[in-house]
Parts: sequence; structure tokens; C-alpha cells
Amino acid sequence: MLDRRHFLSTSAAGFAAALSLQRGLLSRTNLFAQLENFPPLPDRSLYDKNEEAYWAEMRKQFLIPEDEVYLNNGTVGSSPAPVLRAVFEGYETTEKMDQQDPEDYPIWGYAAWNEFRDPLAEFVGCTRDELALVRNATEANSYIANGLDMKPGDEVLMTDQEHPGGEHPWNLKAKRYGIVVKKVTLPRPVKDTAQVLNLFDDAIGPRTRVLFFSHITTFSGVVLPAKDLCALARTKGILSAVDGAHVTGMMRLNLHDLGCDMYSSSPHKWLQAPKGSGFIYVRDEVIDRVWNTIVTEGWDDPKIRAERFQRIGSSNVPALWGLRASLKLANDIGMDRIEKRHRALADYILAKMMKRGAESWTSPDAALRCAIVTVNVPGVPRMDLENRLWKSHKIRIRGGEPNKLRLSTPYYLRREDIDRFLAGFDEYRRTNGV
Amino acid sequence: MLDRRHFLSTSAAGFAAALSLQRGLLSRTNLFAQLENFPPLPDRSLYDKNEEAYWAEMRKQFLIPEDEVYLNNGTVGSSPAPVLRAVFEGYETTEKMDQQDPEDYPIWGYAAWNEFRDPLAEFVGCTRDELALVRNATEANSYIANGLDMKPGDEVLMTDQEHPGGEHPWNLKAKRYGIVVKKVTLPRPVKDTAQVLNLFDDAIGPRTRVLFFSHITTFSGVVLPAKDLCALARTKGILSAVDGAHVTGMMRLNLHDLGCDMYSSSPHKWLQAPKGSGFIYVRDEVIDRVWNTIVTEGWDDPKIRAERFQRIGSSNVPALWGLRASLKLANDIGMDRIEKRHRALADYILAKMMKRGAESWTSPDAALRCAIVTVNVPGVPRMDLENRLWKSHKIRIRGGEPNKLRLSTPYYLRREDIDRFLAGFDEYRRTNGV
Repeated sequence: MLDRRHFLSTSAAGFAAALSLQRGLLSRTNLFAQLENFPPLPDRSLYDKNEEAYWAEMRKQFLIPEDEVYLNNGTVGSSPAPVLRAVFEGYETTEKMDQQDPEDYPIWGYAAWNEFRDPLAEFVGCTRDELALVRNATEANSYIANGLDMKPGDEVLMTDQEHPGGEHPWNLKAKRYGIVVKKVTLPRPVKDTAQVLNLFDDAIGPRTRVLFFSHITTFSGVVLPAKDLCALARTKGILSAVDGAHVTGMMRLNLHDLGCDMYSSSPHKWLQAPKGSGFIYVRDEVIDRVWNTIVTEGWDDPKIRAERFQRIGSSNVPALWGLRASLKLANDIGMDRIEKRHRALADYILAKMMKRGAESWTSPDAALRCAIVTVNVPGVPRMDLENRLWKSHKIRIRGGEPNKLRLSTPYYLRREDIDRFLAGFDEYRRTNGV
Repeated sequence: MLDRRHFLSTSAAGFAAALSLQRGLLSRTNLFAQLENFPPLPDRSLYDKNEEAYWAEMRKQFLIPEDEVYLNNGTVGSSPAPVLRAVFEGYETTEKMDQQDPEDYPIWGYAAWNEFRDPLAEFVGCTRDELALVRNATEANSYIANGLDMKPGDEVLMTDQEHPGGEHPWNLKAKRYGIVVKKVTLPRPVKDTAQVLNLFDDAIGPRTRVLFFSHITTFSGVVLPAKDLCALARTKGILSAVDGAHVTGMMRLNLHDLGCDMYSSSPHKWLQAPKGSGFIYVRDEVIDRVWNTIVTEGWDDPKIRAERFQRIGSSNVPALWGLRASLKLANDIGMDRIEKRHRALADYILAKMMKRGAESWTSPDAALRCAIVTVNVPGVPRMDLENRLWKSHKIRIRGGEPNKLRLSTPYYLRREDIDRFLAGFDEYRRTNGV
């Protein structure tokens, strides 16, 4: 190395080359210094003094342009500066190919990844050995449906509000292996917990093997009584599998307390983790009953517990650095405060929309909703509204045919953002006479 | 936005806040400017003047420290500056949540991703509709094994040198569904093409349904006669599935010319693409015979062809930005030059090792090897050697028990790097009397 530099510096061309080499090395160490120019995280004491100011400061951690109102976090979140910084540090570190002992190749796969699973396990209330890091809830849902042995005629019971990534793995299993998909129809809105429990209890039959449902449905945002449903399944000797795509980072979550057998999630939504960093939880007692889906060395090793579900070969480890940073961020803010904020903003937007004659499709019971509000506004063509709000106002919402609007309220929204949406909505109706 | 700034600037605290906001915005646009400080790619004319100098310049695009010799590219490559820049641009762009029309949500999944599949299809010689972007060859291999309908007793025929991510998906299918895994034993080294063809021809039986083999084996680096093997399979009415984890970016590849039915690859190895950006190829005529593995909307839509295999929900799109950049880089350099360089370095290291009494396990036929050389050195304990080379010399190789060394020669190595390895190897033997 020194020899090489010495050699290079003996000629003019060599001097230029050495300089460029030097710059290259410098840029390697300062590669992501720019991200440090983001404002620091607001101090927690600001929260006590002025909660609204605290969240407004937090808003500055996001790359979403200042003048945009993003009410579509239910589709996908946006990773803020601390998370992106961690991703880039992950790249910077792993691409150097100099960080591990020779015995310890597999930093890109085949690993326990306890440095990422441990904080996640603590965050979601389970043991590390019950978690596998996968890409998202859809992948986790496929692992569940693929993994369980079921005979032709065996039934999975789900709601009519499942996400395509929750429902279709079972549809494939039905088409290929003859299992049967049955659905309960959730009321719009769901009135209370008892209503849901009765619906499921009535629908469970002698061939029901699996209860599969969304903890929070993507369709209406209703928070289903997951703990009660899992207990119901348990009493009937049925496995429970919960699609918690929306839950991690939106609400406090404790999987052991919830009592489910399996759980899927997409922290890229409400935890604002990088896209491509999800997880599957399988209760320890159930792990050995689940076949693997994507497999390599260790695919059927019972000793590594749920780790075997994350053994898929070399994959995107920097995204896991980002996941870890997003867990830290949520802990730094505090999940109590985040959940409280999520609920407050959602309650605010729901009340304002109902005043405007919208029909709530989520739930009148505040305990059965959190940061996704779904309203039906008869007469308002949702796609035209979406387009107009985006193109004229830089406001992003997401609806469903024909008149459904899904409004997501992540903690980093400011009340003024919601007011801007309401003003845009009012203007649209006025202008279009709907 | 302007109003807000005006408001903020009316007080001292506001002024500070505005300044911090301003810095935040600036850093958003200049976020990755540092990466621009890497030296520019060497001009192609330098190649004509001084090939060695050209590759030495190219070496500077990598984050691998100057004083490290990385001979383990066969495990995983290192993404150079242009690729990382693209990844970070991908994050910067997609995390803004402002880049698409409301009708066009799914930039994180559910998309055709033709902007990434098109250059890849051109690079590997197939149509975009025959490609799906997955994480790596292991995942693609599982899609193949999971996806094909086979009856108990149906056989897959493979070599004894498959990667765990190639072999185990079939082992799972054997254990769960009763198919049978049969293997041909490849000689060490493989002598010539005819030898391999005869081995397979002899092993094909009436229940053989699938021929599965590595285009380049991870064990010995031998380049198997894939085109001939696929033609053999075709004449027997057997499907051919090729694990090409090592091929993309190491050698020129034309899938239509190769004539396989299915192909898996991990461009994170020799194309130096980001970890987590692989692909599966399924010949158009075969697509409809393959069930999906991870599924959501579109899982069984025949119109979208192989795209249905990449529909897995929101995932890590910035990695695809990096994949595209790695394709561009390889095209800019030229795959002819890259392959020539790979072969030259491998031939060089092989000759030097054979002079030292090592036994080649790759092939004496230069056409049956490329950038992975595997040698057996009786008496040399490989793990101890690996450790010593790394700890004392920052030289990274990878072996196998008990005396196998696998030496990967990516284009960005300099001959002096290889000489440093040879000197380290000699020193180890001298010091340890082996």
C-alpha cells in the first residue's frame, strides 16, 4: 500500500492518481456525512412542553417534501433519516468485505441475525427463536399457508376483508391441494368485539383447521379482537394465524400476550422500516409443524427454531440495519406516545369526515380502530378525488371503488396537514357538486 | 410552504428553525454527493493502451480496502460506487412518496418493473416476460422445485456438486411429497464435455422428470456443458433447470441460445449487484406449468407471464436500481472484456498453484472453467490457512474440508493481488512445513 503510493507519487500522472485515490478513500469514510445535516431528533422534553411542536419537528426527519400531505402510510411508510442513515451504514460496512472472521462468512445470509432479531423480539413481545426475518407480511403469509399440512377438504376460515397477500396463499392451496377457503363477512362498520367473536364462532365447523385474519384490516382499518379470536381458536383446537401487516409500529404489540400461533408483519408500513424488512412469528410449540418455503442449508434443522425460515441465501442485510434503526427510533419516541398520536389524529380526521356526512367503515368503538380510518362518501368518485387532490394539492390518499376513502394518520402528520386535506376535500365537493 | 417559511422567519427561534429546515432540504438534494468523489470510471481507451492499468483503475470503484485481496467473490461480490450510488438514488427517490400518479401506487411491488427487467433481459438473452426479479438463485431454485407438479416416485436428476440452495428445495419436496432425488457424481476434475453428457445420459431413467444442475458449480468452479445438457433433456422430454448463480456477470450468457427451461441466478456475485437482487427465468412455453410460491394479487394471472413470480408485495426496490446500474457497468466495460479478464486471472492463478503441486478440481479444459478455480492441496489444512491469510495478510480465500481452496478471480483484482496471495500461501507452507 505504502509502496504503491510512493510509486505513484513519482510522476505527475501518478500524483493525480494518488490524489484521486485519496479522495476516493476519504469519500468512503465520509460517504454519508450529508445525512448528518438533517436536524437532530427533537428532545423528548419538547413533547411535554408542546406535543404538536414535537411532532412537527419529527416531521423533518422524513424525505417527504414539506408541502406534501401523505395520508397513504397504510400502503407503505417512508423511512426517515435515522433509518436511511443505518441502511447506508449497512452498505458501507458490508461492502468492504473486511468485517468478519473467515469462519464467519455469512453476513449476507445463513445467519442467526440475532443483532436484528433481539431488538425486534423485545419490541413485539416474543423470543428471538420464534422470529424469522423475511421481506413482508405477504411473504410471511405464504410461508404459513405453504407450510401447514392440510388435507383436501380441510378449511381455513378468514374474513372478507383480507389483503390479497393474505388471502391468495390460501387460494393457491385450495386450487392446488383441495383445501377449502371459507369467509365470514364483517359488518361495515364492525360494532363491537362480541359481534366479531360470534361471527367466527358460528362459522367454525368440524373441518376448520386454521383461523386466519388481519389484526387490522387493510380494507376498513378495523382493529379486530385478535386476543379473543386466538383464544377462541385455541379452545377449539384450531391454529390461529394473524396478518399483522399494519400493527408493528402503529400500536403496542405483545405476541405472547396476544396468544396467536403465527403472526406476519410489514414494519415498512407503520414502523417506517425499509421496504423489504418484514417478519414471521411462529410460536415455539408450533414451529415444528411448519414446512419451510424457500430453502437452503438448515431448512429442516429443528435446533435453529424459526431461524430456518429466514435461511434464504444471501440477501439484503442493509435493510435489516434499517429495521433495527426503526425499532430504536420507535423506542426513543416511545410506542405509548406513537400509538396515542396515531389514535388522536385518526379520531380527529374521522370526526371531521363524519361531520361532512361520511359513513365510517372502521368502527364506532374507538378501541377497534387506530391509525387507519376508512369512510364511505356516497357520490364522491374516489379515483377522481385522489387524482385531483394529488395534482392540485400534493395530498395523497387512497380509496377503493366506488366511494371509499382510506385515510392513514402516521404520527409525523401535523394537524395542519389534515386540515389541508379537509379543505381540499371540501373544495372538490364544492367544485364538482357532489 | 412559502407561507410557512415566512412565518418562521419572523422570530429568532423561527429563524433557527428555518435554517435547520433549509439544511435538511439541502441535504436531501445533495445527500449522496459524496459518492461523486469516487474517481471516474477509467476510459475505455486506457484498456487499449494498458489493460492492466485499466483494471487497476477499475479496482478503485470498490469499497474493499486497497490493502485487501478479495479472492472470495464466489461467495458474494462487492457493489462498486456506481451501483451503490444507484441504490442510494433509489432510496432518495422512492422515500419521497411523490414520484407517481395516484393510479400507479405500486412502485414497491405488484409492478412489471420493466425498467429493470428490460436491461436484464437484453443482458441475459431472453424476453422480459420470461424473467421475474427475486432475491437470489436460492429463492429461484425453490420457486422451481416448489412450482412443478411431480408425483411420488418422480425423479429429479442433479450432480453431487450442487449448492445447498439448489439441492435442498428438492430434498424438501422428496421428504414432503415423495419425489426422488438422484445424483450423478462428477469427476474431480471433469475432463471434457462428453464425459459429463455420458454421465447424465446413463443416469436418466423412465421416472426422470427434471434435470437440475449448476451452470458453474460452487464446489469446483467447473463450467458444465449447459447447452448440451439442456438439449439432451429436451430430446428425452425432460425439463431442464439450471442454477446459474455464478454466471451472470462472470461469462456472457444467452438464455435462448442455452435452451434451458428454467434458470436461476444471483447477480450479487459476479455482476456485483446489490445483495437481494436475483432472478428466475422460465421459458415462455413452460411458465404456465409452474405454480407460484410467494403469492398475492396476480398470482395465477397467465397474462402477466413470469411477472407473477415477482409479485410478493412491497419489497426492496432500491436494490433493483442497483441491479440496473450493475448491468450498465458491465455493458460499459463490455462482457467480452470482463470474461476475458476473468479467464486470464483464473488461468494465471491455476497455473501458479499447479506449479506448487496443487491438484486442479475444476477442469483441464480451459473452456470448462472461468473465474473460479478450485484446487486440492493435500496436507494443507484449509481453515487454518484461511485464518492465517486473513489475519496476517488481509487476503480472503474460501476453502472446503479438508484441503480444498476455492479461488475466485473477479475482474477488479490486480495481478499483484494474486502474487500477494501466492507469496502468502508459500510463506504458510514454509512456516508450517506442509
